[in-house]
Amino acid sequence: MLRYLTSGESHGKCLVATVEGMPAGLKVDGAVVNAELSRRQMGFGRGGRMQIEQDRVEILSGVKDGFTMGSPIALMIQNKDFKINELPKVTQPRPGHADLTGALKYAHTDIRNVLERASARETAARVAVGALCKIFLKEFGIDFISHVLRIGNVEANTERLSFEEIRKNAEASEVRCADKEASKRMIEEITKAKEGKDTLGGVFEVMAIGIPVGLGSFVHYDRKLDGRLARAILSIQAMKAVEIGDGVAGSRKRGSEVHDAIYHDPKKGFYRGSNRSGGIEGGMSSGEPIIVRAYMKPISTLLNPLPSVDILTKQPVKATIERSDVCTVPAAGVIGEAVVAFEIADCFREKFGGDSITEIKRNYEGYLKQVREF
Amino acid sequence: MLRYLTSGESHGKCLVATVEGMPAGLKVDGAVVNAELSRRQMGFGRGGRMQIEQDRVEILSGVKDGFTMGSPIALMIQNKDFKINELPKVTQPRPGHADLTGALKYAHTDIRNVLERASARETAARVAVGALCKIFLKEFGIDFISHVLRIGNVEANTERLSFEEIRKNAEASEVRCADKEASKRMIEEITKAKEGKDTLGGVFEVMAIGIPVGLGSFVHYDRKLDGRLARAILSIQAMKAVEIGDGVAGSRKRGSEVHDAIYHDPKKGFYRGSNRSGGIEGGMSSGEPIIVRAYMKPISTLLNPLPSVDILTKQPVKATIERSDVCTVPAAGVIGEAVVAFEIADCFREKFGGDSITEIKRNYEGYLKQVREF
Amino acid sequence: MLRYLTSGESHGKCLVATVEGMPAGLKVDGAVVNAELSRRQMGFGRGGRMQIEQDRVEILSGVKDGFTMGSPIALMIQNKDFKINELPKVTQPRPGHADLTGALKYAHTDIRNVLERASARETAARVAVGALCKIFLKEFGIDFISHVLRIGNVEANTERLSFEEIRKNAEASEVRCADKEASKRMIEEITKAKEGKDTLGGVFEVMAIGIPVGLGSFVHYDRKLDGRLARAILSIQAMKAVEIGDGVAGSRKRGSEVHDAIYHDPKKGFYRGSNRSGGIEGGMSSGEPIIVRAYMKPISTLLNPLPSVDILTKQPVKATIERSDVCTVPAAGVIGEAVVAFEIADCFREKFGGDSITEIKRNYEGYLKQVREF
Amino acid sequence: MLRYLTSGESHGKCLVATVEGMPAGLKVDGAVVNAELSRRQMGFGRGGRMQIEQDRVEILSGVKDGFTMGSPIALMIQNKDFKINELPKVTQPRPGHADLTGALKYAHTDIRNVLERASARETAARVAVGALCKIFLKEFGIDFISHVLRIGNVEANTERLSFEEIRKNAEASEVRCADKEASKRMIEEITKAKEGKDTLGGVFEVMAIGIPVGLGSFVHYDRKLDGRLARAILSIQAMKAVEIGDGVAGSRKRGSEVHDAIYHDPKKGFYRGSNRSGGIEGGMSSGEPIIVRAYMKPISTLLNPLPSVDILTKQPVKATIERSDVCTVPAAGVIGEAVVAFEIADCFREKFGGDSITEIKRNYEGYLKQVREF
Repeated sequence: MLRYLTSGESHGKCLVATVEGMPAGLKVDGAVVNAELSRRQMGFGRGGRMQIEQDRVEILSGVKDGFTMGSPIALMIQNKDFKINELPKVTQPRPGHADLTGALKYAHTDIRNVLERASARETAARVAVGALCKIFLKEFGIDFISHVLRIGNVEANTERLSFEEIRKNAEASEVRCADKEASKRMIEEITKAKEGKDTLGGVFEVMAIGIPVGLGSFVHYDRKLDGRLARAILSIQAMKAVEIGDGVAGSRKRGSEVHDAIYHDPKKGFYRGSNRSGGIEGGMSSGEPIIVRAYMKPISTLLNPLPSVDILTKQPVKATIERSDVCTVPAAGVIGEAVVAFEIADCFREKFGGDSITEIKRNYEGYLKQVREF
Repeated sequence: MLRYLTSGESHGKCLVATVEGMPAGLKVDGAVVNAELSRRQMGFGRGGRMQIEQDRVEILSGVKDGFTMGSPIALMIQNKDFKINELPKVTQPRPGHADLTGALKYAHTDIRNVLERASARETAARVAVGALCKIFLKEFGIDFISHVLRIGNVEANTERLSFEEIRKNAEASEVRCADKEASKRMIEEITKAKEGKDTLGGVFEVMAIGIPVGLGSFVHYDRKLDGRLARAILSIQAMKAVEIGDGVAGSRKRGSEVHDAIYHDPKKGFYRGSNRSGGIEGGMSSGEPIIVRAYMKPISTLLNPLPSVDILTKQPVKATIERSDVCTVPAAGVIGEAVVAFEIADCFREKFGGDSITEIKRNYEGYLKQVREF
Repeated sequence: MLRYLTSGESHGKCLVATVEGMPAGLKVDGAVVNAELSRRQMGFGRGGRMQIEQDRVEILSGVKDGFTMGSPIALMIQNKDFKINELPKVTQPRPGHADLTGALKYAHTDIRNVLERASARETAARVAVGALCKIFLKEFGIDFISHVLRIGNVEANTERLSFEEIRKNAEASEVRCADKEASKRMIEEITKAKEGKDTLGGVFEVMAIGIPVGLGSFVHYDRKLDGRLARAILSIQAMKAVEIGDGVAGSRKRGSEVHDAIYHDPKKGFYRGSNRSGGIEGGMSSGEPIIVRAYMKPISTLLNPLPSVDILTKQPVKATIERSDVCTVPAAGVIGEAVVAFEIADCFREKFGGDSITEIKRNYEGYLKQVREF
Repeated sequence: MLRYLTSGESHGKCLVATVEGMPAGLKVDGAVVNAELSRRQMGFGRGGRMQIEQDRVEILSGVKDGFTMGSPIALMIQNKDFKINELPKVTQPRPGHADLTGALKYAHTDIRNVLERASARETAARVAVGALCKIFLKEFGIDFISHVLRIGNVEANTERLSFEEIRKNAEASEVRCADKEASKRMIEEITKAKEGKDTLGGVFEVMAIGIPVGLGSFVHYDRKLDGRLARAILSIQAMKAVEIGDGVAGSRKRGSEVHDAIYHDPKKGFYRGSNRSGGIEGGMSSGEPIIVRAYMKPISTLLNPLPSVDILTKQPVKATIERSDVCTVPAAGVIGEAVVAFEIADCFREKFGGDSITEIKRNYEGYLKQVREF
C-alpha cells in the first residue's frame, strides 16, 4: 500500500508531503521533481503568484546517496511568499470557493483559516508526490502525458496526433495544448476573459502509457481503478467532472459502436482494435493506454466579484478579491498527471508487492511472461 | 467510520453485504430495503433475469426487535437463479466487460470465474447497503431522488420541475424519466435498439436533499465529498463519467456565470441564489441539494457480438452471448442513489460521531444551531 | 491487502464473515474449516453451549468447484441455539464483561443488545477466517501450533519438546496442554474451580513455523508485525496481556543474555543460534518460528456473581448468571492461531502481491532465492 | 479519524510528522511539545547522543496565531547530529536489531540503510504527535502519567501512592521511578550493567486519567481499545510484551478475585470498587483510569557484542558497536504516554465527531449528561 499525507498553507512557511510505501533502491533525482514543479507553474493566464514562487523540492528523508531507502520520504517546498501571520482577516466569502462552507464547518470567523489550506497552492505538494510515483513507474516503462483539450469554448483537435506529437506540442505550447492553431485561439480567449475581469475553465486529458493489463480489480467496489482515478481527479480544486475514455460521447452511442474488439497476435498477445474504453474495463487496466479527462470550472476568485455576505455583519457585500489567475487549465493538467500517477503506483504496489526495485522488477517480469504465455 | 464488504456471484447461492459502523437504536424495516431492491429490478429494457429474481433481503444479524444494536449488520439476498456449478465454461471474452482482463489478471482459463462476480448482479447488495444508509439519513431529514436524463440520444427536459415532481414522475415512468413525453421516446429508442440487437447507455442524475452544510472536507485530498462521490459512481458497472452540478456545461462558461452568489436571511441563515455547484464547494456540502450525474456506456453484452478471440485456442471468434438487458440506465439510477447514500452516511458519521441515534441527533441539532447562530 | 468483516450475535440466526483479498486458484476444502471450528469447541471446562452447537461452515460465495475465484469469500455458521428474540431482557451487568460499558456507550436499556455481540461466540467466525488463512499459508509451507502453558497456577513444562511433540501432545490433551502430567493437574484445577462456582484463566502460546524472513516492516509504526499480532491477540475476548518470545522474562535479563546470535551456513543462509526474540526483530519476521503468548483472565460470568447494580432501578444486585464455561484457555489457543494466521497472511499478501496462487508462488520463490543468494 | 505519518532517519536532516484529523480552534503551544521532547531525552543510563540533541519542534503548518486551523499539522525536529552521508557503511548486523532482517527484506548491502530508520530516534516524532494529542485531550480533562516499575530485576513499589504522588515522584526521579528507594537501586543496577558493558530492560506503566466511559468498541475486532493500545505499545522499539491492568497476575487468579464490582452513586453515576481491568472492559474504556504496562527488552546494541556474520563476506564477526544507551526504560515511558495518547485521541475523535473544539465540547458534554442520567 502506498499512502501519503500533505500539509501546508498557501502563505505558510512551506508545503510538506510524506510518502509511505515506496520500495528501496529507486534512484531519485530531485531535479526530476523540480522539473515537474516547474511544469505546474507555467501556462498563459497565470497571476502574479507564479512569478514569486519558483518551487524547489527539498528531500528531507527516505533518500540516501540518491536512492530510496524504503523508509518514508518527506518532501518540503518552501513558500517564498510566507506571510500568513501578516495577512488581513477575511470575512467576505467568495462564491464557488471553500470560504463560506469551510467557515461554518470549522467555526472559523476568519475565512483566512479556510482559504489558506483550500487554495490550490496545496497541489504543489501533490505534484511532488506524483513526480516520485512517475520516477517509480518509469522503471517499468510507464509514462504520462497531459494536454489541454478545451479552454472555455475553444476546442483542440488532436485526433490525428500520436502520443509523442501530443506530448511535444503540448509541452511547447503556452497553454499546454497540442493543437497549435487552437493554442493561439485559447490565448486570445484568456486575454479576452482577463479584459472582462472574468475567468475560464476547460478540459484537460491525462494519458498513461505502458500500463500492464490487470491493475485495479473488479472484485470489490473500492478496488476499481476507474473509481480511484475519479476520486483523485475530483480531489483537485475546481474539477467538476471526470471521464474515462469516450465516457460522455460514448453514452450517446450504441453498444456495437462503443466497445473495443479483441484480437490476438502470437507475438504481442491479446490486444484491442480501438481504445474507446480509455484503457479500463471492469475496473481494471486493459493494457491499452489509460485516458482520463477532467472538466474544470472557471476559477472562483473574480476581479468583478459576485454578491456575497459579510460573515460577521451579515450585510450584503461583494466577495473578497484575492490575487488570482484567469485560467489554470494548463497547470491543472500537470496536477492531473500527478494524481493519476499516484493511483497507478498504488495499484502497481498492490499487484506486484515487493520491497526493493529488484524484487518488484522480478515479480513484474514474471507476470508479463505469464500474460504473454497465457 | 462506516464500511462494508459485499460478496456473491451472479449465479451463486446468494449475495451478502456486511455493514459496520451503523449506530444503535435505528428502526430498520426489511420492507423498506425490499422496496429499494424492487426499484432496482424495474425499468423497460431489462432482460429475462429480472423476471426470475424478485430480490428479498434477509437481515442475518445486527438488528433485534426491529432496531439496530450497533453491531455489524449482515444482509443476504438469495439468488433464485442459483446454478453456478452447472453453467458451462466461458472462453470467448466480451469486449467492454471484465472478461479478458479479469482472466489474465487472475490466471483464470474459465471466464465464468470472472464474469460471475464482475456482473452487475452484485449491485443488488449495494442497493441493500444503500437502503440502510437511506433509513439512517432519513432520521435527519435527508432524502434521495434519481431520474433518467438521457437514453441514447433522447434527452429529458426537467428544468421546470420541482424535486417532488421529478420524483413522482420518475417513479411513475417505465424508464424512470421525469419528462413524460421523453419517456415515450426513450421506450421507442430502446425498442429500436433491441430490434437491432444492440444496446443503449445514457445519463442519470442523483439528488440528495436536506444535506447539512459541511460534510466532507477540503483539508486533505481523500476527504473531499466530490471525490468520494465520484469514486462511488464510477465503481458502478458501465459508468464512464461523473459530473457534479453543471460540471460539463460549466467548464464552457465564464466564472461570473458559474458560481452561486451568497445571501443571508435572518431566519434561514446563509443560502445561495442558485445551485450550479451541485451542492458541493471546496469538497464539502454547501447545504444546497447535492446533484450528481452519471454517464453510462451501452451494455457490453451484445446479441450481435463484436470480434473476440477464444482464450484457449487463440482463434478469432464472436464474443459469448450471455442473457442480458438492452438498457439499464433506469435501474442504474437506483444503484446511484444507493452508493451516494453510503458516501453521505459515511461523511455524516465522521462529522457527528456518536453510537446511538439519540446521541447523533443531539450532536446534529447542536451543530445546526451553531450554523444558524454563526 | 487482506481484510474481513464479521457479524452475528450469540443467539442470533448465524455468524457471517466476509474475507476480501484472497487470491484466485486456492483449493479450499470446507472440511478443513470445519475441523478448525471443532478444535475451537473442545476442551475440558466448557459449559453446556458446546454440546448444543456443532459448528459447520457454509461457504456462500467466492469459491467455485473447490477453488477460490479471487472474489470475496463469505462464510456462514448457523447458530443451532437461535433464540435471540425469545430471550429475556438483561439489566444486571456482569463485572468484567462489556455489559455496563456497552449499555452506556450505545444507550441500550437491555444489556442483551450488548452481550449478544460481545460474547466470544463471535470468535467462531474468526476461526473460520483464520482457517482460510491457514489453508492459504500452507501452500507456502507455513504451519501453526497452539498449546496451553498455564491454567490458573498450574504450569506446563514443554522446554524439551519439539514442535511436533508439542502439537501431538496438545491435540491429544483435553486441555490442549503438551505436558501430559500438567494436563491432569489442570483438569483437577478446573474441577475445583467449578466446584467453587468460580472460573479460571491462564496462558496459551501460538507458534507459526516456516515463516520467511521479512514479513512486516520497521519503516512505519503501524506496519510492525509484533504490533499487528498484539492487536489481534488482545482483540480476543478476555485477553489482558500479550508477549512475543521471551518478552516478560527477557525484560529481567541483560542484553548479552537476550539477543539471538547470528550465524551463516552456505546451504541454509543466515540463521540464529536461539529464538528468544520469538521470531520477530525490528517489527519483522526473522525467519525463526514466531512465538506469541497470550494471558487470559478468568471468565467474567460467575455462578457466584459479584456485586452489581440494576441499570434501570439503580439498586444493588448480584450480576446476571448466563450459561457459561469455567475455563476456555484451551479453546482460546485455537482462536489465537486463527488471528495470528490472519495477520501473517495479510503481511504475506503485502510482501508478495499477486492475484493467483501461481503468481504468488512465483514471487515467493524468487524472493527466497534472493535471500538465499544474498 | 485521526492519522499520522512520520519520516526521518537517525542521522538525517530531521524528523517530520504530519497529523491529519485534528479539529480547529485548539490552542497549541510549541513549548508544551518541547517539554515532552525534553522528557523523552532524560533519564539515567542514556548515551552520548542525548547530550548532542536538544530536540525542539518546529510547527510547519496547520497552526495559525497559536490555534489549529483544522488542516494537517506538520511538525519538524531538526537533527543536530546530521551526518548520514558521511557515516561509514555497516555490514555486521547486531542481533536483536532490525539490521539483518531489514537488509534481507529490502535488499540492502549497507545496513545503515536499515538502522537509520529502525533506530528509536524516530520516536521523537511520535512524542511530538503524542504531545499534540495530549494538548487536545487536556481540553476534556484527560491526563497522562508514566513511571518505571522495574529495571532489570529491581522493582518499584507504588501500591500506596496516589496518581499525583506517582507523577510527582517519577518526574523527580532520574530513572522516572516513583519509588524513591527503588530509584537508587535502579541507578546502581544501571551503573553495574554499564561496567559490565551490558544493557538492561524493564517495565513501565502508562496511566490515562479522566477517560470517559465508552471509547473503543466491542462490535468489531479492530475497534477494541485494548487491541489498539497493544499495537501502539509493541510498535515502540524493544517492547516485547504489553499488559492491560493486572493482565499477567490476573491470569493466575480466580474469576471472583479479578473482576471489578459495579456500584452506583446518585451523584457520580456508575463506578467500580476496584480497577483490576486497567480501565478496559469489552474492548471499551470503563471510565476508570486506563493502565497499560510495557515490557522492554535490554537494548540490542552491546559494547561487548554477540556473535554475528558479515553480510558481504559471510565470515563470523562480532556485531557492530554503535554509540548507544545502557538502559532507556525511563525514556520509553514517555514514548508510551505518547502512543497511548494518540490511540485515545483517535477513539475520542471517532466517538464525538466534530470539526472544532467548540463542537466537540458540546458533543462531549451532551454524552456525559446522557451517561449521568442513564
